[in-house]
Amino acid sequence: MTYDVHPIGVVESSLNDPATAPKQGVEGGPEAWLVFAAGMAAGIGDLAVGDDVLVLTWLHLADRSVLAVHPRDDQLAPLTGVFSTRSSDRPNPVGLHRCRVLDIDGTRVRVSDLEAVDGTPIIDLKPALDTTR
Amino acid sequence: MTYDVHPIGVVESSLNDPATAPKQGVEGGPEAWLVFAAGMAAGIGDLAVGDDVLVLTWLHLADRSVLAVHPRDDQLAPLTGVFSTRSSDRPNPVGLHRCRVLDIDGTRVRVSDLEAVDGTPIIDLKPALDTTR
Repeated sequence: MTYDVHPIGVVESSLNDPATAPKQGVEGGPEAWLVFAAGMAAGIGDLAVGDDVLVLTWLHLADRSVLAVHPRDDQLAPLTGVFSTRSSDRPNPVGLHRCRVLDIDGTRVRVSDLEAVDGTPIIDLKPALDTTR
Repeated sequence: MTYDVHPIGVVESSLNDPATAPKQGVEGGPEAWLVFAAGMAAGIGDLAVGDDVLVLTWLHLADRSVLAVHPRDDQLAPLTGVFSTRSSDRPNPVGLHRCRVLDIDGTRVRVSDLEAVDGTPIIDLKPALDTTR
């Protein structure tokens, strides 16, 4: 069984190279725009500046055949199963990013702390809940 | 552009009906088994009992055409854009569940606090990081 993911928008960022991008948003992820498709306007209509959100992306440059990695690209670290790491290389490369909403301009939403590179597809957005950390 | 999600496993749970299942794991989600495909063994090989994990599922019973909902099925609550809610009805119905690993038996992993119903496809598993809540 396979399911189709249809992106709802795209990341507009100054980051272009996954190799040099921060590995986590809190490690220097810059501000970026989430550019939603026009058809998603009703879905984002209740976002507000200051909201803490979880941005889910599809890490389209990832290698989906990888099941074990050297964590943080440290070749001296032992090979580790990808489901115990935040590697972007994994069977279903869903990126999970905690960000704060900084600005809203129609269907463009500016957020903090996003380490995804320019052009990364957005697949979902959820409110961050303390209870689902 | 569309991407294919290939499930890596399936939830085995005593819950069968999304209408009566808890809305969040901490609201009474029971223990459940994550049953991974045999081919995923290398990916889960470094999981350990006691790990806090984020289980990503594909909520296969969701209505993907929905962009606004009455939060928590309360018809008196105002219609709210789905990206400001944790509704399972949304364009890409990715479920995000924080659970603790309780037991590991080969490619079967028992976890706490999982509100997903029996048969829900698993698409990813990540370590919970304090920094990416």
